[in-house]
Amino acid sequence: MPSALNPSLAQFRRKPKLLPAERYVEGILSGDRVYLGQAITLIESNISSHQSVAQTIITACLPHSGKSQRIGITGTPGVGKSTFIEASGLHLIDDHQRKVAVLAIDPSSQVNRGSILGDKTRMERLSRREEAFIRPSPAGTTLGGVARKTRESIILCEAAGYDTILIETVGVGQSEIAVHSMVDCFLLLLLPGAGDELQGIKRGIVEMADLVFINKAEAERKQLAKQAQKAYRNAIHLFAKKESDWTAEIHLGSALQQIGLPEIWERIQTYFEHIQRNQFLVTHRQEQANYWLSESIEDALKQWFYGDEAIQAKLDTLRAKVMRQELSPFAVAELLLKEKL
Amino acid sequence: MPSALNPSLAQFRRKPKLLPAERYVEGILSGDRVYLGQAITLIESNISSHQSVAQTIITACLPHSGKSQRIGITGTPGVGKSTFIEASGLHLIDDHQRKVAVLAIDPSSQVNRGSILGDKTRMERLSRREEAFIRPSPAGTTLGGVARKTRESIILCEAAGYDTILIETVGVGQSEIAVHSMVDCFLLLLLPGAGDELQGIKRGIVEMADLVFINKAEAERKQLAKQAQKAYRNAIHLFAKKESDWTAEIHLGSALQQIGLPEIWERIQTYFEHIQRNQFLVTHRQEQANYWLSESIEDALKQWFYGDEAIQAKLDTLRAKVMRQELSPFAVAELLLKEKL
Repeated sequence: MPSALNPSLAQFRRKPKLLPAERYVEGILSGDRVYLGQAITLIESNISSHQSVAQTIITACLPHSGKSQRIGITGTPGVGKSTFIEASGLHLIDDHQRKVAVLAIDPSSQVNRGSILGDKTRMERLSRREEAFIRPSPAGTTLGGVARKTRESIILCEAAGYDTILIETVGVGQSEIAVHSMVDCFLLLLLPGAGDELQGIKRGIVEMADLVFINKAEAERKQLAKQAQKAYRNAIHLFAKKESDWTAEIHLGSALQQIGLPEIWERIQTYFEHIQRNQFLVTHRQEQANYWLSESIEDALKQWFYGDEAIQAKLDTLRAKVMRQELSPFAVAELLLKEKL
Repeated sequence: MPSALNPSLAQFRRKPKLLPAERYVEGILSGDRVYLGQAITLIESNISSHQSVAQTIITACLPHSGKSQRIGITGTPGVGKSTFIEASGLHLIDDHQRKVAVLAIDPSSQVNRGSILGDKTRMERLSRREEAFIRPSPAGTTLGGVARKTRESIILCEAAGYDTILIETVGVGQSEIAVHSMVDCFLLLLLPGAGDELQGIKRGIVEMADLVFINKAEAERKQLAKQAQKAYRNAIHLFAKKESDWTAEIHLGSALQQIGLPEIWERIQTYFEHIQRNQFLVTHRQEQANYWLSESIEDALKQWFYGDEAIQAKLDTLRAKVMRQELSPFAVAELLLKEKL
């Protein structure tokens, strides 16, 4: 790359030079965290030369991916996600010889930087471990874009030998649906107490959970936690059966005091044995791949269409007519497509 | 139309001749149910000359639409939807001087014809009333297509003066989400008893409901109904607050024995007063119009793209590569779009 001749690349001088894709792939496959981190930076970059190398790396890593347990962890701010993830990571590394990668999806982190994994020191002990890889949420303006970057990062982490991928979300937005489309298991963290306290949890999230962990069930809050556990157990009976044929479980404990942590991870392992036995893991991942294929195609189509300034201008005029009940949405779609093609 | 010269149109000879759009519009605006029915048949037709007249009719009816209460009614087969809708329609006509149109969304009716409103005689008493218009679910292979046809039919019914539009769905599929995008109020019918009996209700449906009516709460089932009412009331506290700032209500009664029917309709009116007062009705309908605009555009884009046989063939090959982890979904999308444009 003629970076010395290209002044527009000057701003990247301080960053590591862009290497040939093979170098990153070699590094990743040997488990080198520096190459892994740099390759993920390329995935997250919007510069087309970076994207092109990133896509080559992803394709080379693909055959080495897919062997991990992909676990989504969600919960509103204050529920203790960082503490839970750090304690879980250390437990999995020390007691189960696992290699743990922690990724995050939080499209809002644009606005509110640092709200999620923004400060790596929040997981200082875990991040010092060689068996761990921690990466904050990628920047991005659209959830779709952020989700794609995270999904591609999973592939690289798996190729680098991480057998447990924890994907953190904030539990208050649409991100959970995106996460759900890339994980095998969905764990929801809740605070003790039911009802009003949970207003922050978005509709449908509880129904998505394979396991719920009521955190901070310490001292005087233990009674409240037990009440919440009972309320959720009752509520779960009202939900339809999951495709995985697994009945959601509600557990309680304290990540800070290390109470209930080995137990919840034992149940997560039981869940994985269950979905391996009944083939749900395989079919679910194929459904996810299909979903991502459709999403990718449709995103590309939309980008091509809506990215056209002339179309945008026309759309604004026509949208106003729809709002005034002068034109039907379908008529507008017809008009715009005729214009574009 | 030179139908006499065109043998391909011979099959439509027995059907009423295609009239100029103005004739249908005049008929609809004067409240004529025959013209309304024929115009909806045009909406449901896939023949392009029919579609073109249908779109003209819709555009002409649009300024006269929007003044009704649009209510989605869902519940699994056996819950007594037909009985409930017929009794409700008669109650609204007789006691509230309303004009009631009953539409339906059921994409599965392709396979299982007659499962929903297929047999008009199921609502014989209501269908004999001049103030009622009943229309079975339109045929269609995709939910999107069926949903669009129903949504366009709403516009025509409103232009014909129907002030109450009841939209029936089966409560076991994706249809509820489509219905939710076209109604102001969502009513869920349940059977007495909680838990196992409700396995048929799809996840998320309960959370969508603005009001729940536990039907068939008769004689010995009344106790069961009360238990279900209590369980759902508790569960509702676990859900996030609705955008409409309305707390879902659980009522019980019997459509067959006319118990609780005036009461549930009184609550539905209270709900409408609530969303009118806090402007949710207006903002929600504008969101729905925007949603339908995006849906229409994206459907048209997809039809243009996936309708291409060469693209389909290539997609099949590339999809197999994605499943074998040889190519990433994003790489495939890039390849296909380059091919098409």
